[in-house]
Amino acid sequence: MPHYPEGVDLVDVGPRDGFQSENRVLSTREKDHVIRWLLDAGLREIQVTSFVNPKRLPQLADAEDLLAVLPFREGVSYLALTLNAKGVKRALATPVHRIEVSLSLSDAHSRRNTGMSRERSLSEAQEMLAMCKRAGRSARVSLQCAFGCVLEGPIPLRRVQEAVRTLYSAGAEEVVLADTPGVADPPAIDERVSALRESAPQAFHGLHLHDTRGLGLANVLRALQLGVTRFDAAVGGMGGCPFHPGAAGNIPTEDTAFLCSRLGAATGIDLQRLAGVTAELENLYAKAFPAKIRSGTMAC
Amino acid sequence: MPHYPEGVDLVDVGPRDGFQSENRVLSTREKDHVIRWLLDAGLREIQVTSFVNPKRLPQLADAEDLLAVLPFREGVSYLALTLNAKGVKRALATPVHRIEVSLSLSDAHSRRNTGMSRERSLSEAQEMLAMCKRAGRSARVSLQCAFGCVLEGPIPLRRVQEAVRTLYSAGAEEVVLADTPGVADPPAIDERVSALRESAPQAFHGLHLHDTRGLGLANVLRALQLGVTRFDAAVGGMGGCPFHPGAAGNIPTEDTAFLCSRLGAATGIDLQRLAGVTAELENLYAKAFPAKIRSGTMAC
Repeated sequence: MPHYPEGVDLVDVGPRDGFQSENRVLSTREKDHVIRWLLDAGLREIQVTSFVNPKRLPQLADAEDLLAVLPFREGVSYLALTLNAKGVKRALATPVHRIEVSLSLSDAHSRRNTGMSRERSLSEAQEMLAMCKRAGRSARVSLQCAFGCVLEGPIPLRRVQEAVRTLYSAGAEEVVLADTPGVADPPAIDERVSALRESAPQAFHGLHLHDTRGLGLANVLRALQLGVTRFDAAVGGMGGCPFHPGAAGNIPTEDTAFLCSRLGAATGIDLQRLAGVTAELENLYAKAFPAKIRSGTMAC
Repeated sequence: MPHYPEGVDLVDVGPRDGFQSENRVLSTREKDHVIRWLLDAGLREIQVTSFVNPKRLPQLADAEDLLAVLPFREGVSYLALTLNAKGVKRALATPVHRIEVSLSLSDAHSRRNTGMSRERSLSEAQEMLAMCKRAGRSARVSLQCAFGCVLEGPIPLRRVQEAVRTLYSAGAEEVVLADTPGVADPPAIDERVSALRESAPQAFHGLHLHDTRGLGLANVLRALQLGVTRFDAAVGGMGGCPFHPGAAGNIPTEDTAFLCSRLGAATGIDLQRLAGVTAELENLYAKAFPAKIRSGTMAC
């Protein structure tokens, strides 16, 4: 039998990756409610918003206002995504705990998502990390399209390794490989997780997976077998990528937590409560989300 | 890196497990079309119907008529499910290639599904296998609720081992562990696949998995790592169990075939064509099915 980790940290990215993928814009008050429900369900790391162009993502235009009302509780860490120095500057003016410096390893995706070439993005990211360091704010890096890109095709492993090495040296405490379009598979998890460990052995290593082609939890299983203990996931399996055609939701937090629990890896998450948050979100958005774990599916 | 099989056989159970789960009754002609499309997509084993009480499952009442119109092609094997001697008698009067002798290891589920106690079912199954043997017809056994039952709770491993041993001795060429309610997880796959191999080392071993709690493909991945090479799956992820509350669809054939292909395990299935069959079925039933692999999601 394979060995699985004793504990796993799940970062709920629903309030960022999920909310930005829906047309309906939640009010700051509604977001505050959802995030408090996530805390009540046992989540301890939540990506609460991003500091990006409000014209392009009106869903997250209230980032500062949201951080002004959220509860700051012991042991809880809020994360905000940024794509450029301007975003970091805005984030640093708020009490958000950690800043995510996010960039794409696909040139085509980078230009569409940020208007910058991949190389421009990489030097911008180093400046963003320096800003966080000067301000004494914790920073993590997420490498979008680290498993491939539907716009550009395969992303060479060397490109991943170089970016990991460069940004780890520039001060990233954690490097997350993000499968933005949802093209990863178990052999790619093997290959890229090994590369991440070689290139940045001291950094925390996380995976950000989407379930576009149904392999989301199979990829989590393979990563757990390799000892990965940090995953992004979104409550209900919300999410996608507004600038990536065909990209589907993130892996659902409740389904991921359920898999972990079945492998003996503690997440601190109360599945019944988390399923309840998805039910509330489905009411708010008047639509169904993909998560399979529901209040009624947990017997036996 | 783990070792994966070079080839995997997928048995499409959509025309039985899928069709019986929908309210709309397809015509024999519509079913014939769907099964021909599955053949065109590369499926070589299809569970085309069951011989059960037409009053309880009107969706499959045309079993004899369907087998009279289906094409019989070289290398293709049709399978029909039976629950009692009466069903086997009906099946033997048709040219179906293989007969599935299906019984539940849960007493509560057995009574609800067939009106027989679990023990009565087990002796009935032996008689059914004897009928197949006398007629020279190939038979496989499927053990429903082999991973647990939401009505009855956990199913002891010993009960699985005893049933496997008894029915293998009675002439089953293949024993399939069916996770009827969808409660299996990777450690249970480890435990029960090992038990199956010990109790019936010469039989073919298959798994019939449902995706009720999102672990369907994670369970397939673990089974592939253990060397399992036969899986039931349903086109589109149709299916469920009409007498099992909360049970969701089978693992989708296209998603399972996609995972296999990514692990280097050939299935002979044309994913584009199979995704097309799901699209046709969604038209026929005017509803969406859970499969993630779609014509537009296969790039990269």
